[in-house]
Amino acid sequence: MVMKFLSDNAARVHPRVWEAMRAADTPDSPYDGDALSNLLDERFSALFGRDCAALWVATGTAANCLALSAMVEPHGAVICHREAHIEMDEGGAPGFYLHGAKLLLAGGEGAKITPEAVARIVDSIRDGVHQVQPHAISITQASEYGCVYRPEELAGLANFARGRGLGLHMDGARFANAAAFLGGDPALAAGLGGNAAGAAGGVDALSFGMVKNGGMSAEAIVFFDPAMADKVRFRRKRAGHLQSKGRYLAAQILAMLEGDLWLDNARAANAAAGEIAAAAGDRLLHPVEANEIFLTTTAVERLALRELGFEFYDWGEEAARLVTAWDSREDQVSALAKAIAAL
Amino acid sequence: MVMKFLSDNAARVHPRVWEAMRAADTPDSPYDGDALSNLLDERFSALFGRDCAALWVATGTAANCLALSAMVEPHGAVICHREAHIEMDEGGAPGFYLHGAKLLLAGGEGAKITPEAVARIVDSIRDGVHQVQPHAISITQASEYGCVYRPEELAGLANFARGRGLGLHMDGARFANAAAFLGGDPALAAGLGGNAAGAAGGVDALSFGMVKNGGMSAEAIVFFDPAMADKVRFRRKRAGHLQSKGRYLAAQILAMLEGDLWLDNARAANAAAGEIAAAAGDRLLHPVEANEIFLTTTAVERLALRELGFEFYDWGEEAARLVTAWDSREDQVSALAKAIAAL
Amino acid sequence: MVMKFLSDNAARVHPRVWEAMRAADTPDSPYDGDALSNLLDERFSALFGRDCAALWVATGTAANCLALSAMVEPHGAVICHREAHIEMDEGGAPGFYLHGAKLLLAGGEGAKITPEAVARIVDSIRDGVHQVQPHAISITQASEYGCVYRPEELAGLANFARGRGLGLHMDGARFANAAAFLGGDPALAAGLGGNAAGAAGGVDALSFGMVKNGGMSAEAIVFFDPAMADKVRFRRKRAGHLQSKGRYLAAQILAMLEGDLWLDNARAANAAAGEIAAAAGDRLLHPVEANEIFLTTTAVERLALRELGFEFYDWGEEAARLVTAWDSREDQVSALAKAIAAL
Amino acid sequence: MVMKFLSDNAARVHPRVWEAMRAADTPDSPYDGDALSNLLDERFSALFGRDCAALWVATGTAANCLALSAMVEPHGAVICHREAHIEMDEGGAPGFYLHGAKLLLAGGEGAKITPEAVARIVDSIRDGVHQVQPHAISITQASEYGCVYRPEELAGLANFARGRGLGLHMDGARFANAAAFLGGDPALAAGLGGNAAGAAGGVDALSFGMVKNGGMSAEAIVFFDPAMADKVRFRRKRAGHLQSKGRYLAAQILAMLEGDLWLDNARAANAAAGEIAAAAGDRLLHPVEANEIFLTTTAVERLALRELGFEFYDWGEEAARLVTAWDSREDQVSALAKAIAAL
Repeated sequence: MVMKFLSDNAARVHPRVWEAMRAADTPDSPYDGDALSNLLDERFSALFGRDCAALWVATGTAANCLALSAMVEPHGAVICHREAHIEMDEGGAPGFYLHGAKLLLAGGEGAKITPEAVARIVDSIRDGVHQVQPHAISITQASEYGCVYRPEELAGLANFARGRGLGLHMDGARFANAAAFLGGDPALAAGLGGNAAGAAGGVDALSFGMVKNGGMSAEAIVFFDPAMADKVRFRRKRAGHLQSKGRYLAAQILAMLEGDLWLDNARAANAAAGEIAAAAGDRLLHPVEANEIFLTTTAVERLALRELGFEFYDWGEEAARLVTAWDSREDQVSALAKAIAAL
Repeated sequence: MVMKFLSDNAARVHPRVWEAMRAADTPDSPYDGDALSNLLDERFSALFGRDCAALWVATGTAANCLALSAMVEPHGAVICHREAHIEMDEGGAPGFYLHGAKLLLAGGEGAKITPEAVARIVDSIRDGVHQVQPHAISITQASEYGCVYRPEELAGLANFARGRGLGLHMDGARFANAAAFLGGDPALAAGLGGNAAGAAGGVDALSFGMVKNGGMSAEAIVFFDPAMADKVRFRRKRAGHLQSKGRYLAAQILAMLEGDLWLDNARAANAAAGEIAAAAGDRLLHPVEANEIFLTTTAVERLALRELGFEFYDWGEEAARLVTAWDSREDQVSALAKAIAAL
Repeated sequence: MVMKFLSDNAARVHPRVWEAMRAADTPDSPYDGDALSNLLDERFSALFGRDCAALWVATGTAANCLALSAMVEPHGAVICHREAHIEMDEGGAPGFYLHGAKLLLAGGEGAKITPEAVARIVDSIRDGVHQVQPHAISITQASEYGCVYRPEELAGLANFARGRGLGLHMDGARFANAAAFLGGDPALAAGLGGNAAGAAGGVDALSFGMVKNGGMSAEAIVFFDPAMADKVRFRRKRAGHLQSKGRYLAAQILAMLEGDLWLDNARAANAAAGEIAAAAGDRLLHPVEANEIFLTTTAVERLALRELGFEFYDWGEEAARLVTAWDSREDQVSALAKAIAAL
Repeated sequence: MVMKFLSDNAARVHPRVWEAMRAADTPDSPYDGDALSNLLDERFSALFGRDCAALWVATGTAANCLALSAMVEPHGAVICHREAHIEMDEGGAPGFYLHGAKLLLAGGEGAKITPEAVARIVDSIRDGVHQVQPHAISITQASEYGCVYRPEELAGLANFARGRGLGLHMDGARFANAAAFLGGDPALAAGLGGNAAGAAGGVDALSFGMVKNGGMSAEAIVFFDPAMADKVRFRRKRAGHLQSKGRYLAAQILAMLEGDLWLDNARAANAAAGEIAAAAGDRLLHPVEANEIFLTTTAVERLALRELGFEFYDWGEEAARLVTAWDSREDQVSALAKAIAAL
């Protein structure tokens, strides 16, 4: 039997998302003029406890790059981790959407960056026109290694960004997993100081991922400065991302928010990852805070796991990456945990 | 009662498309590595009777611009009708995808262009580097005014394009309606000389529309020169259009092709348009060959129609645009035809 | 003997420009850090009677496009005359520098546009994201047909631009000729209300041409909003237009300003054009207000002129374009006037 | 007395270059239609012993980026040294000219790269569309640390590039200095196997620097595949780099080639650098093979040199960069050598 731990990308669509899409199957205004699309601003504003503007797009790559396009001019740069998705996995999309702006790469444990690491880059750039100047910072929550930025880390980055006049973007492909890890408050997970705290601090724009977490084809870009959204509406259309039957995307997002399905799904995926992590002991390359497990393993060990039916990616020569999803089956998770413990 | 003739864009998703999407709801490889996406080349090759490579994308705008990106360099231009969707309705997407290449605008009855009209533009451009040189022609089948290019017209354009070293792209947002009008042979509708005729002539790339015709969120870009597809695969990813759960897009397209659902749907829409057109007499601004009706009307007449519950767009001050869809209800179509006849 | 009236582009370099360049031939800081480059802001501020920031570049195309890049976002558009140099003669440079922004083309006598013509375009654009929205207007002073905008025409355009939130750029490839025609006040010629009038009205940025008027390889971009210059400094470098021995460009510009050489040269060219125009009678296609003459002529007449040694461009099938320059020789100008009168 | 060793960028223009420019001061066809510009292909073909096409531009940044634009598509990447000028000093121009293509950075002694270093990058890139694929390699001759690629090193890189289907570009801002070091044969310095060897191997395009070596404002882009030049002619115009009085640029380049002035000037600069290097002993950070000297020094030592009147750049905290030029004065060079020896 095949048991897939390759990617949450490949998971199924949640039944409640299906239901919401079917419920939207009646003629309505095209593009984002329909009743469902018009609910997004309000729903995200309620979720984050402050005024937001939210746009749907089909992919995380589009979400990240469109969000950054509101902060970065073509002659500017984005500072991100050298393992960031925008650098490693988006086929050069930032170069396309930002018209040739540069990515400047910082290091950092667990694929997280710190104000100090960012400062080293900023301070190494000569003033003036001969070197590209940074316009924004992009961080990933949870990070590409499944690590979660704590609220105080986010506050530090937000303060640094404000102090240097830089925008702050969050790639939240697994934002739900991070929020679940932090107790379930999305404002905290976005560095916004908790729902009680008003608009201070935090990120300027968030790519709020849905597809890895039970959605089909809809991600949300959430702008905490609504003026940014007005510009990005034009950029979304110009990028061919304004779908004519947008109501089916809005329906997915609303279903994910309804009754905190997004949190429930993320908790399920995190719990599955936690069970596997507990079995892995000191094989773990990074603390397991979301739904990804990076495991030191030999090629022989990986072969053994695969012979048992488990599918996953090699991570270099000496490790494996395993990803759980909202629909990971308990029996398969337990079987995997046992198999790892038995290596 | 509201009876919508605003746009086929707003129509529902066909039940067989829904079924196919649900059938795809099992984990598979992400992006376009899944079993369904891998069927597209073969299915379109069978449909057109020659080797094709086909890619899914979510919107017609992305399909058009990605197709053109295989033919047009940033320092080149595309010749199209001045009413073409790429000029009038895509928010500048060609400028984005083609990195600043220009659109050069031709006139022509029924939003169709002729080799003569294209030649006038090409010949008016001074040789050399001071004026942007054309690299491709883009035509719309059926046109923005619901008119259909005949096979011999397409052959003329294809010959002209070959002779001048230009690529030829077809925006087929309503390609199905055109093919239905021409008797159901898609190769003929793409200028490819009929299924029997081999690879001669015809367009280089086709944006084969599905969304207006019963799909939800998947269009196909069909390349009759498969090498073009290899380049566009990179451009699609770079544009954020490579969805991670691509199998749901492939499923839509395959369902549309299965049993010629695409043709059946288009025939239904065309028949509905034909019924309305028959009632409209000499009010018609353009021959009704697909599913759009442009109708000379006074403001008072349009108000009268709206008071009966019909929704549609004004087309300037003295006309209305009415669009039927695969799911236009017969009773509503008959009611509209009667109301128009009674004006 | 060959007598060239092809283009002021081909004229010689003025001796005082040569002298200034030679005087700059001593080591100084590279790029624009030298003593001469540092004088530009002050000299242009004095010339226009208000705070300016000025940058040198090598070509009018670069000047126009860089100036516009401070006003137009990639998803926006520039409104200009359909005969404007940026549309007809710059090889698509606006598409490159503006990252795919569009040019929207207005008509107008003498290649001049009016607020009414611009308004028709702006008002024809549908609100929302489906059509590219205008961000700026670009006008040419003197126009491509050698016609000069009067101060009140400029005030009308500036008011319109302000009212609609649009930037206003002036392509001044022949700005000197226009200023000479208007009596010599550059602020008037830029719509700035005369030196006495303070900062009200006028253009936001001016491409102040020098090359056609006795310079070799230096044009000035003058920003009446100095903040625009700060952004364009980055764009200039990024476009490869920040020359390392910039002092030789600054020297040219300063020499042109010194003692109003720019005005003297333009007056000479205008006077030569005036003499030819006086001989041309009702053959003139446009009033001759600068240094270009458009002349209705038959092919036989043009041949006759050429056989006498005069070089010039055909302008379509039924006209000729003749251009004088600062160094047009009086004997050749008189000969040409006589030859035209004798046709 | 101030003695400048800051940059060859700031040097004077050679008298024979001045003479040639003055000799060009007669009306001729604009842009590159003049008699001098038309000589470039032939002169460079003679110099390199094979068919070349050559274009003038005003800056090395434009030369590099335009050359690369013939080899790299927007969705591709260029591999270069992490200290390369295109990465460190061109204000993001490659991102602009290449429409968002990426630079991939290799390490290597003396700012030189090896096939092995390039292979490590190429081999680390996952196949497929998720990571940007390399299209070209760019190397600098002499390198940013004044080191010269030997013919056999160039052959290795050229073979590697051919084998992997990559273009090979050479930034020759100090190409003359490299050629002088290698004995004076430009074909050898471009990896072309010597004048005797025909077209085999070598770079596809060379930015042949003139400005640092006695020119004023003209660099040559030399294409060893002339078809590349045809495309770049359009790109040059589109970038605003086609100067209307191009004959003054062509004149500079021709003067530099005439009688091997380019080599004589480079030899003078190299000799000056050699004298300083000989005095520097084991302070040298890199072998001095061209006209740059990188010298380990303390802050106190640098202060001491500056107090003697020498101007130069700090290179980090513990070194200085000194650059000689064609016009470095012998007395000042000797004085500097003595001062360094005496530290």
